[in-house]
Amino acid sequence: MSDGLTYRGAGVDVGAADRLVARIAGIAAATHGPEVEPGPAAFAGLYRLPGGSLLAATCDGVGTKLLIARHAGDFEGIGRDLVAMNVNDLLPVGARPLFFLDYVAAGSLDPGPIAAVVAGAAAACGESGCALLGGETAEMPGLYRPGDLDVAGFAVGLVDPHRRPDPDGPRAGDRVMALPSSGIHANGLSLARTALLDRAGLQLDEHVPELGRTLAEELLEPTALYVEPVLAAPPGRVGALAHVTGGGLAGRGRAMLPEGLRMRLDPQRWRRPPVFDLIERAGPVTATEMAATFNLGLGFLAVVEPDAAAAWEQDGWLPVGEIRPGERGVSFDG
Amino acid sequence: MSDGLTYRGAGVDVGAADRLVARIAGIAAATHGPEVEPGPAAFAGLYRLPGGSLLAATCDGVGTKLLIARHAGDFEGIGRDLVAMNVNDLLPVGARPLFFLDYVAAGSLDPGPIAAVVAGAAAACGESGCALLGGETAEMPGLYRPGDLDVAGFAVGLVDPHRRPDPDGPRAGDRVMALPSSGIHANGLSLARTALLDRAGLQLDEHVPELGRTLAEELLEPTALYVEPVLAAPPGRVGALAHVTGGGLAGRGRAMLPEGLRMRLDPQRWRRPPVFDLIERAGPVTATEMAATFNLGLGFLAVVEPDAAAAWEQDGWLPVGEIRPGERGVSFDG
Repeated sequence: MSDGLTYRGAGVDVGAADRLVARIAGIAAATHGPEVEPGPAAFAGLYRLPGGSLLAATCDGVGTKLLIARHAGDFEGIGRDLVAMNVNDLLPVGARPLFFLDYVAAGSLDPGPIAAVVAGAAAACGESGCALLGGETAEMPGLYRPGDLDVAGFAVGLVDPHRRPDPDGPRAGDRVMALPSSGIHANGLSLARTALLDRAGLQLDEHVPELGRTLAEELLEPTALYVEPVLAAPPGRVGALAHVTGGGLAGRGRAMLPEGLRMRLDPQRWRRPPVFDLIERAGPVTATEMAATFNLGLGFLAVVEPDAAAAWEQDGWLPVGEIRPGERGVSFDG
Repeated sequence: MSDGLTYRGAGVDVGAADRLVARIAGIAAATHGPEVEPGPAAFAGLYRLPGGSLLAATCDGVGTKLLIARHAGDFEGIGRDLVAMNVNDLLPVGARPLFFLDYVAAGSLDPGPIAAVVAGAAAACGESGCALLGGETAEMPGLYRPGDLDVAGFAVGLVDPHRRPDPDGPRAGDRVMALPSSGIHANGLSLARTALLDRAGLQLDEHVPELGRTLAEELLEPTALYVEPVLAAPPGRVGALAHVTGGGLAGRGRAMLPEGLRMRLDPQRWRRPPVFDLIERAGPVTATEMAATFNLGLGFLAVVEPDAAAAWEQDGWLPVGEIRPGERGVSFDG
């Protein structure tokens, strides 16, 4: 029980996933004509319309957060997560969300949970200025167990050329500005569940003093929506934007950088939600694995020119670090 | 064992699904600004871009056809089905497919089946002239059983105003032209499985003389792609187009009609694949339930002006019936 716990140990093999994604990308590339623009593949696909407009499209789910929602019988937050996971992924390519569609599959069409998912999605669409344009509700007896369901979401946005980050990327001296996460969001739940439930023996409906609420309430806190603050960001050169999801703060930070640049984040500059300390101790999970899995309190990153940093801070962004020459990657130094 | 078998009896309650869909539509409508155009909701959502272009978007899965694919260990056809179920749904609103995204979720990322799904999807995207723009591969231990996976697809198309059916819909005297299905496609599989496997006791890998192949091979035949013939259709007034999916030939035919018009289909005019006779006998399933669940051999319908029918027939469309005054619905009369 004292083995260091990893995401892989919790059943999620990120390395295998990355290899599979690379294989899939090769297959998909064969279908790409000149309309498809290269972009940061981790976020949105880019498609140029005949008239010249550039569309961005994302597809994402909420992972095993669903299992906690099922336990708690509370699915409205799942709908919010689903929209957030998708529309937040449109932002790094400079896109404004236009519309969203949802897929909900279940063993039997229990109207309560499904309507709750859709109500949550509709509310989050409203707050993101995008239309819930359609979706599919699939009844699949024999595939899903009673009470289980899965959800997937798809969002399409319109790229504003003035909002696209500088194609040359971050420069040494640039500042890293961030927006706080609302908690664990919808990444790393399998690791969190293994650490907190299996290893530490906590119960989902147990009140946890460090959290000030039950574990289920903490883990089900919906993913923050970043559409409004990102679209309202101040002018000035932006080197890169990132929604902090799979790969965690370290992985997403690294993906923003070219070779030869390092992102130094100062952990004193933001509040790390106590749920992450709980997971780290319960695993135990190494600091490296924590940073490669979780957002650790920062849900969205922007690398901006130094002169613009004050304006971003004025708008509520946290100045959490800077870009320096060095080995490509993220350091956490106080 | 001699009870008439219904789709509901096989675990799929279409009435409950319709009520849920109506409830969801009400929730979604609150997020619709003037950019969202009303349209035949069964197919694609319509969104007007700032520049005036009209986008169509669909979302669909392949239902419990997945359970047969798992049994047969053959997932490439599932990828083709997933694309076909989505891009075919773009066609009735006059849209040309631009791009497609896929969601694949599994308990563990077994690269074989997932890469097969994506390879099938990429091939079908290529044949549909659309880009496989992205997707999500989700590893969800604890939600899916070992070997199980689910897939969802999402397609976006550009509406060509000249290809949109006449907003006034079909008229009495119009002809019904159709394209053959390749078999059961991806609708009604739960009913087919209950009838053939549970009631008739057939085995999926059993060679069935009427089919000339195994039951699994028959049921896994991928959904036909209708993009090419529909986009190449001859000129002339089109009253309505339909991809024959949930609701079957009777339900989709009825949805094409206004009050006061009836679609009369002549079953002598097309070949009904023998798998449908097998299901009908095995259930037994009434003719009404068969027509309300399955495509019965016709995968795509077009209602066209009488003078255009010959040109459509020249292009390989089957003249299967006509529109007459009468009670809204579909008759099958020889």
